[in-house]
Amino acid sequence: MTASGTDDGVHIGVDIGGTKVIAATVAADGEVGPLARRSTPGRRVEVSLVEDALTEAIQEAAGGQPIAAVGIGAAGFVDAAGERVMFAPHLPWRDDPTRSRLEARWQVPVVLDNDANCAARAEIALGAAKDASDVLMVTMGTGIGGAVVLGGTLLRGRNGMAGEFGHMQVVPDGRGCECGGEGCWEQYSSGNALVRYARGRIIQSYAGTTLLEELTGGKPAALTGPMVTEAAHGGDRIALDAFDEVGVWLGVGIANLVAAFDPELVVIGGGVSSAGDLLLDPARAALEQSLVGAKHRVIPPIVRGRFGPESGIVGAATLARTVH
Amino acid sequence: MTASGTDDGVHIGVDIGGTKVIAATVAADGEVGPLARRSTPGRRVEVSLVEDALTEAIQEAAGGQPIAAVGIGAAGFVDAAGERVMFAPHLPWRDDPTRSRLEARWQVPVVLDNDANCAARAEIALGAAKDASDVLMVTMGTGIGGAVVLGGTLLRGRNGMAGEFGHMQVVPDGRGCECGGEGCWEQYSSGNALVRYARGRIIQSYAGTTLLEELTGGKPAALTGPMVTEAAHGGDRIALDAFDEVGVWLGVGIANLVAAFDPELVVIGGGVSSAGDLLLDPARAALEQSLVGAKHRVIPPIVRGRFGPESGIVGAATLARTVH
Repeated sequence: MTASGTDDGVHIGVDIGGTKVIAATVAADGEVGPLARRSTPGRRVEVSLVEDALTEAIQEAAGGQPIAAVGIGAAGFVDAAGERVMFAPHLPWRDDPTRSRLEARWQVPVVLDNDANCAARAEIALGAAKDASDVLMVTMGTGIGGAVVLGGTLLRGRNGMAGEFGHMQVVPDGRGCECGGEGCWEQYSSGNALVRYARGRIIQSYAGTTLLEELTGGKPAALTGPMVTEAAHGGDRIALDAFDEVGVWLGVGIANLVAAFDPELVVIGGGVSSAGDLLLDPARAALEQSLVGAKHRVIPPIVRGRFGPESGIVGAATLARTVH
Repeated sequence: MTASGTDDGVHIGVDIGGTKVIAATVAADGEVGPLARRSTPGRRVEVSLVEDALTEAIQEAAGGQPIAAVGIGAAGFVDAAGERVMFAPHLPWRDDPTRSRLEARWQVPVVLDNDANCAARAEIALGAAKDASDVLMVTMGTGIGGAVVLGGTLLRGRNGMAGEFGHMQVVPDGRGCECGGEGCWEQYSSGNALVRYARGRIIQSYAGTTLLEELTGGKPAALTGPMVTEAAHGGDRIALDAFDEVGVWLGVGIANLVAAFDPELVVIGGGVSSAGDLLLDPARAALEQSLVGAKHRVIPPIVRGRFGPESGIVGAATLARTVH
């Protein structure tokens, strides 16, 4: 193994989320190079359009250096062999031999895993879960992803689909989800949920939220997750309420997972986690409130991942280092 | 190891549920002797009253034969060392050194585990999960218990509390639960839920349910779970509806668990499982309907445990055989 940028070439980690592709070189110590971003064209387009975006992103990330290997973390179900994307609610792949086709196209070793599994790999290898053995990883981006580490090993499951926490039903007959279900957890706690909540408020009135009015230019449709985060850090009431809403739902869902897994640590990654305690404090309170037998057990800490929104990239590159 | 009834004495398995204690001798091949039953006096009584009921039950089960060891499966949180009952929603024990006190009282080796873990031990060692590696066990009695087997090993968790599926929240602000929570799964799918549903119907009218009217002597308050099962087997409409209701909720909850664990098999044990397909068919349909990515994965079969309501007894005795 060599650090990024040696004669073997650079290791590139790619994170394919519901709305964007991000690629970057990652050094052996986890240092992430400049981020190359592309929009993902959605789930109703040709697969080749997503792959064109990917190709542009890794070329920009490499910046002309030779590439040793590419690791990809994809927001979808990846088979246990790491060969195929079986299904991805926000992407067009359906039982698709993604890994081998990209390897053939790029002519470098390519490895593939679920994005949340990659995030967990990063936090176990180099981050917030380095000293832990039984860990739940919850990644909050467009939706919710998850990964389970037991005895230091990633749980894959029968179909390679363990850890799909985002599609656990938390509200009977609840909000419709892109997965086809109703009332899925990620409909109430995710980047999308955050924006939906804040947008619902500012559509009624911008009263008391000069920051969001300024950031959106007075157009609620222009609101994005990062705007809500920025406004919340600036003390904006509606933005803070939005984080409280998704944070409480985060904690309620974590309470269910802790009841089932009884882990020692819960790590939150993904883009929304950059809000830090604005998100995690209401989640911690809700966990303590909702967890069965809370007074008779050690409640696992909920911590922010070291790599935040870059955990998928770092973990994918960690995986890439295992093949070249 | 010897079979039950040799000169070493008999191995006794005890299942302590929310409403009753059942004890029996269990042979090495899983054959269960005559059941000795006692009512559990509830969760607001002296601990000694529960232990008196236990003592009577094991004496009756032994029937004068020497006892080699006693295994106890308790409906509560047992610490990872198998020493203490930390908390039991339906029983009076709170951080209680149950194992050692009973061993001192009975002067025979005593081992202790959670009742659902015991049920899983029985099904793995001798029953429906014998050939499986990654299994979820759901026991439906008064409430819901659960156990997780991964790679053939029981998942215990940080506090020994893994598998507490019954207290995962499935309805926000839902029905109050004895655990202190609201909307817990077992409030919608359990023996209690079955009786509540059927009783709610017959309180309005016995019309169309001559069987339940006969079984209860016209008194809705007299209704029990076994009566609902008997009436459903006899084709009674209200009883069948009650099983459909708790069966669908069973499947919805299992879909959440399968999303998280992706197991190869789901085994249903506990008293309510004696209804068989009356319970499992609606659960299977709801699982297929609710599970994320159902078309892109192998859906785990939901099967009835071999030992049904006796799985806790058999598993507790299996555990007892490991110490003497």
